[in-house]
Amino acid sequence: MNEFDYIEKYFQPLTSDEARNLKDDAAVFKQKSNHDLIISTDTLAEGIHFFGNENPKDIAKKSLRVNLSDMAAMGAKPIFYNLAISVPKYKVKNFIPKFAKGLFEDQELYGLKLIGGDLTSSLQNISITITIFGETLNKKSISRDGAKIGDMLYVSGVLGLSKIGLDNFVSKSKSFISAKKRYLFPQPRVDLGLSLNKIANCMIDISDGLIQDAGHLAKNSSLSVVLDIAKIPLPSINLNKSLLLDAALYGGDDYELLFSCKPIYEKALKKISLEKNIALTSIGFFEGFKKNYVKLKDNNNYLKNKSYMHF
Amino acid sequence: MNEFDYIEKYFQPLTSDEARNLKDDAAVFKQKSNHDLIISTDTLAEGIHFFGNENPKDIAKKSLRVNLSDMAAMGAKPIFYNLAISVPKYKVKNFIPKFAKGLFEDQELYGLKLIGGDLTSSLQNISITITIFGETLNKKSISRDGAKIGDMLYVSGVLGLSKIGLDNFVSKSKSFISAKKRYLFPQPRVDLGLSLNKIANCMIDISDGLIQDAGHLAKNSSLSVVLDIAKIPLPSINLNKSLLLDAALYGGDDYELLFSCKPIYEKALKKISLEKNIALTSIGFFEGFKKNYVKLKDNNNYLKNKSYMHF
Repeated sequence: MNEFDYIEKYFQPLTSDEARNLKDDAAVFKQKSNHDLIISTDTLAEGIHFFGNENPKDIAKKSLRVNLSDMAAMGAKPIFYNLAISVPKYKVKNFIPKFAKGLFEDQELYGLKLIGGDLTSSLQNISITITIFGETLNKKSISRDGAKIGDMLYVSGVLGLSKIGLDNFVSKSKSFISAKKRYLFPQPRVDLGLSLNKIANCMIDISDGLIQDAGHLAKNSSLSVVLDIAKIPLPSINLNKSLLLDAALYGGDDYELLFSCKPIYEKALKKISLEKNIALTSIGFFEGFKKNYVKLKDNNNYLKNKSYMHF
Repeated sequence: MNEFDYIEKYFQPLTSDEARNLKDDAAVFKQKSNHDLIISTDTLAEGIHFFGNENPKDIAKKSLRVNLSDMAAMGAKPIFYNLAISVPKYKVKNFIPKFAKGLFEDQELYGLKLIGGDLTSSLQNISITITIFGETLNKKSISRDGAKIGDMLYVSGVLGLSKIGLDNFVSKSKSFISAKKRYLFPQPRVDLGLSLNKIANCMIDISDGLIQDAGHLAKNSSLSVVLDIAKIPLPSINLNKSLLLDAALYGGDDYELLFSCKPIYEKALKKISLEKNIALTSIGFFEGFKKNYVKLKDNNNYLKNKSYMHF
C-alpha cells in the first residue's frame, strides 16, 4: 500500500464534507458571519510526548484530546480537525490502522470530524500534529487576559493525577490505575468549557502545571493571583501529601480547566458542577499586581517568597 | 532560553491580529459570509523532504512555499498560516533564529502572517508542519474534479527543473545553478492561480510529477487525459532529451500549475501569460474515459500502453 491507499482506506472514512474526500489540494470551509473560528495546534513527538510503545489507538486519542482541551479552554465547540502525521516506513503498516481506529472512536465521542492533512514518512520517530477548529457563537471566546481584581480562581476536577500516573507508569500496583489512565487518556472538559462561556472572565487548560498556568492567567491579565494550597483538590491516592501537592502544583498534563469569574457566580457554578458531575473548586483570587504573579498561601499564612519552588 | 522565550522573541513578531500575540490557547478568526476558507497542510520531515544541512532560512521558505502552492492550485488568496515545529534540543539555538528570518522574508513577499502553532523538542530529527489558510470570494475555488470532455490541458513554466536540481545537488557545474535554485526555492504560482480562478475547470499543483498529477485530475474528473510529450515545456539545460523528459514526467516538486479549461480561453491565457511573464503551454486535452486515465502521444503517434513507464 502506498500513501494514497492508506489515506483512502483509513482516513477518508473519518472525514467531513469540508474534506472533499481528501481528493483535493485543500479543504473548503464555508464561513458564517456571527461566528468566530477558533484554531489551535498541538504536536506530539515520539520520545518526548509519548513513549512510542503505547497502543497506537491510545496515542491517537491523546493527540486529539490535548487539542480538544484547547477548545475547552477557549469556551469553543470543536467542529473539525486537521492531521499531519509522519511515520517511519517500517512502522506504517502496524501503526496507521490502529491509530485511525482511535481517531474514529474519539470522533464519535466528541462529535467532530477530519478535514484534511498530510501523511508522510519520517526517518526515525513518529510525529503527530493536529490542528483543531472550533466555533463560538456571537464572537465570544474566552482568553487568558480577562481576569479582574476580586475574581475568584476556580479549577475543575483534581490536580496532579496525570503526573502521578506518569511517574508510576511502570509500577504494577493497583493504586495507580486511575492515575495511569489519566496520563494516557486526558479528559478534555469540552462541555464544561461551553457552559463556562458566559461566566468565566479568563480561562486556560492546565497542561504545564497549576503554578505555571495560573501564572499565565495572572501575567496576561497584569494581576497577581493568590493560590490557597489548602484548597487545591488532590486525588485520593495513598501517597504522602507533599508528593501529591507537588504533582498538583508542578505536574503537567492534567487538562483540567482553570478559570476566573466574579464571586457572584458561586451558585451558578455549583449547579453546573452537579449537572456535569465535575468538581469545581475555588482555590484562590486575583488582586492588583504586586511583586509576583503567583502568590501561595496555606489557609491564612502566606508562604515565604519562592518557598513553594521545592517541597 | 525556554520554549516561551523563543516564541516571544522569534515568532510573535511574525503574527497577525488573529494570533493574539500567541498568548492564548488558540487563534481567533472572525468569519465572513460570502467567503470560503481554504485549508491545507504540508509536512517537511528532515531526511525525507530536506537534507537537514541546508540553511534554516531556506528550509523555512521551502516549508511555506509548498503550502502556498496548494493555495495557488485552489485559486485562493493566502491569508495566514499556522506552524508546528519540532527541533532536537541541541539544534534549537542555531536553527530557530534563522528559520524565523526565512519565514519573515517570505511573509513579506507573499503577503501573509503567522496565526499560531506549537514549538516542541524532538528526539533526533526536525519536523515542520504548516497549515495554510486562504480565501476565495463568492465561494469559488478550483477543485481537481471539474475537467470536461474537450477541455485543453495547460501547464505553467517548465517541468523537471526541480528534479534535475535535486539529482545534481552536489555537482559544482554552473549549468545546474537554476535547477538547484528551483529545487531549494519552489516558486508557488499564487498570482497566476488567482487569475485562473474564472477560467480553469480543474487545477492541481505539480508536486508528484506530471504523469501522476495529470492522473489525479483525470481520475477525479472520471475522464482520460491525452498528453502530447512533444509539447511539454522543458528547461534549457544541456542534458539529453530523454533525461529532461523523464524529469518532467516523473520528477516531483515542480510546483507549476496544471489546469484544464475550455479551448475558447486560449486568447485570455495568452494575455495572462504576458502580464505575469509565466509561460502557459497547452500540452494535451481531456476525452471520455477509456482504458487509462493518462494516455501519451508524441505529436500524432500514440505511444504504446505503458511504454512511457521507462525511457
